[in-house]
Amino acid sequence: MTLTEQLADFVVRTRFEDLPTPVRHEAQRCLLDWLGVALGASRHTMVDILLEAAGELGSSPQASILGRDARVDLTWAALTNGSMSHIYDYDDTHLDTVLHPSAPVMPAILALAEGGQMSGPAFLTAFVVGYEVEARVALSVYPSHYDRGWHITGTAGAIGAAAAAAKMLGLNLMQTTHALGTASTQAAGMREMFGTMCKPLHPGKAAANGLLAALLAAKGFTSSIRALEAPRGFCHVQSDGPDLGWLTRNLGGTFEILKNSFKPYPCGVVTHPGIDGVLRLREGNSFSAGAVEEIQIRANRLVLELTGKTEPATGLEGKFSIFHCAAAALVDGTVGPAQFTDDRVRDPRIIAARGLVKVEVDRDVREDEAVVSILLRDGRRLEDHVVHASGSRENPLSDEGLRKKFKSLTEGIISAQQADRIIQLVREIEDIDDMGVLIKACSKG
Amino acid sequence: MTLTEQLADFVVRTRFEDLPTPVRHEAQRCLLDWLGVALGASRHTMVDILLEAAGELGSSPQASILGRDARVDLTWAALTNGSMSHIYDYDDTHLDTVLHPSAPVMPAILALAEGGQMSGPAFLTAFVVGYEVEARVALSVYPSHYDRGWHITGTAGAIGAAAAAAKMLGLNLMQTTHALGTASTQAAGMREMFGTMCKPLHPGKAAANGLLAALLAAKGFTSSIRALEAPRGFCHVQSDGPDLGWLTRNLGGTFEILKNSFKPYPCGVVTHPGIDGVLRLREGNSFSAGAVEEIQIRANRLVLELTGKTEPATGLEGKFSIFHCAAAALVDGTVGPAQFTDDRVRDPRIIAARGLVKVEVDRDVREDEAVVSILLRDGRRLEDHVVHASGSRENPLSDEGLRKKFKSLTEGIISAQQADRIIQLVREIEDIDDMGVLIKACSKG
Repeated sequence: MTLTEQLADFVVRTRFEDLPTPVRHEAQRCLLDWLGVALGASRHTMVDILLEAAGELGSSPQASILGRDARVDLTWAALTNGSMSHIYDYDDTHLDTVLHPSAPVMPAILALAEGGQMSGPAFLTAFVVGYEVEARVALSVYPSHYDRGWHITGTAGAIGAAAAAAKMLGLNLMQTTHALGTASTQAAGMREMFGTMCKPLHPGKAAANGLLAALLAAKGFTSSIRALEAPRGFCHVQSDGPDLGWLTRNLGGTFEILKNSFKPYPCGVVTHPGIDGVLRLREGNSFSAGAVEEIQIRANRLVLELTGKTEPATGLEGKFSIFHCAAAALVDGTVGPAQFTDDRVRDPRIIAARGLVKVEVDRDVREDEAVVSILLRDGRRLEDHVVHASGSRENPLSDEGLRKKFKSLTEGIISAQQADRIIQLVREIEDIDDMGVLIKACSKG
Repeated sequence: MTLTEQLADFVVRTRFEDLPTPVRHEAQRCLLDWLGVALGASRHTMVDILLEAAGELGSSPQASILGRDARVDLTWAALTNGSMSHIYDYDDTHLDTVLHPSAPVMPAILALAEGGQMSGPAFLTAFVVGYEVEARVALSVYPSHYDRGWHITGTAGAIGAAAAAAKMLGLNLMQTTHALGTASTQAAGMREMFGTMCKPLHPGKAAANGLLAALLAAKGFTSSIRALEAPRGFCHVQSDGPDLGWLTRNLGGTFEILKNSFKPYPCGVVTHPGIDGVLRLREGNSFSAGAVEEIQIRANRLVLELTGKTEPATGLEGKFSIFHCAAAALVDGTVGPAQFTDDRVRDPRIIAARGLVKVEVDRDVREDEAVVSILLRDGRRLEDHVVHASGSRENPLSDEGLRKKFKSLTEGIISAQQADRIIQLVREIEDIDDMGVLIKACSKG
């Protein structure tokens, strides 16, 4: 078998029973996190534009758009839900490759799950094989691929989406091989697009193209059986030094999903230890923002290099300002998308709090570490040493942290009851016979 | 203005009146040739697969599929007509870059023309700017781009399709810039796919993605305004040594479409001078295939290197056999897709004729040259010196040659009357008020 066929074989043969418990659990966590980031962005202008275009094309009502009452055809649902989930850049990350793995794969199979009487275990299995394929493809081309300017979530993501969709559709080895190939020759997305609507479009197109590849392969469409490894195939064309060994080494024996990471806050990752410290001190002690005299953060040098903006003017700039992040944590007691609107960045109370934040660079402090000290007007000094920020490899976001993130993201989008219902359904996903139940729970509140 | 904006500006500002007569004439020739190659392949299995998938997705009846009675939405029409026109690999070529320029651009604007009350001149103008943009993008990344393994028709084609669609939609400078950018970040297609259904899929996807980019840009979708030239933009990501000067050098002063070339026969280009000679001798003298004792072809060395297969077993192999090509020309008196079916390659009369063909390599004979000598059983020897093969730069296919090609391609697909009607409508395209008339003439016969 070629390397591409070996990956296809893994997709075809993997059963839910083959997935170790931690793998199943992580897949469930991915689902909850992905639904949250997608629902949270479901009111964004970009979603309006996509749905308007779908309407203009007369797209058929086959599958739901999360958090909206729109229904569009399978590929448009994959495109829209996939784009939506990457708008805030708050979705999960495969740290070894900076791939955002859920955004391209989840929407492709969610679209298929709606009409297909698909069980929770079947859904999780398709997701895990999709994740494994995209992560291995990403590992095989990384880092040259990313350095060249490819947005790995758009490229490897399309191949992962095809793998997952092929699994959902029950394709055989040859069909799955052609699905992977047909996806690989559509794989695209450039880093030049960061900061524009094209960035979230990349996982959306990856989802739609991967799904299309699987739908075509089911009908006999042909591609190369060496699509990934051939001299003019995906890995060599999109990387200057691919390591093809990654594609199949110990395939089925290890699971890349176990290296997944969830973002606790939708802002520059180096600000996270500082935010952790402020939030913990605020929660653990009773004081109001007005009672604070000074917030001192001892931090790694990258904090000022990457997020040293003292007077951010827009929500986007706020994401790259440790001063705004710490101030918002102090005033609002939470750090989610709502803390990065233009309005919030210009709020006088937050601007005032920003002035209290002092950052001291310490060469002995690691990137995921910070020492936060808050001096109160009454003279008390509170201190918290964040050894590993939440969401870091050593301190992954807890299930409870993920639930909190989900609640915070979906506030104002769906009702609290609906949010709780989704959390519960995802927790019980292994017992769900028809994923349509979950999808229905995610429709417009 | 950035380079990407300068290209967009050219798209926005070019009027039909700005197009020199030879440019208009060549655009008209492209249209007839493109319609012919698309109609000719309209019964192919791959088209069935695409239309079946479109049906499964409930695609709305917005635009026609050439030669079929199916109607699908605009993007699916672009995808299907675009794929169809590259199935036989018989469509036109921008020789400097081996880009097939019509296949991605024509279907994107044909889809828009159907519903839009679009005039012939407006259509030709959109095509010419689309051609210019894709050819300049192709020139800027060639040859490294192609050497790396990119199928330039799929990549540069998407950007050309976006330019043409933006023109048809009347987008402004900013919208057109974002359309080019949004297309460039979807641009894909690998040479590894040659010989599979993915190869013709590339221009189909290019057409659909370019059209989608323009539709989204019309609604305010954003991309980078330096999408083509930025360090992580299209040219640098997809080429190791781009020449950005090509993007805008003398833009509007020269037209790449004047370097366009049409294929007279759907087989390896080095066989063309030999085929020319056999056909001319057969037409100019009255003899039957049975009267021939020997066919001698003095040819460039590449003829045996690239098309030296003496006993082809399939239609595809026949395309790379000078022996089959010359034999088919002798027996059938024409060389079109019908001469490259498996059945035709296995026909005893053609196999017998194949045995009469002798090829003699001559280092003084150029690639587009051949000396064909036919010895008849009655002792007569007929000779023809093909100085420049038809379809070569020095001997472009004549209007009459293009009409013959069109008739031969559409035989059995549409009626002869319908074919004549299309030829006439294309000849009079500058006077057409509504392109819907032409599209209707191309529907199922």
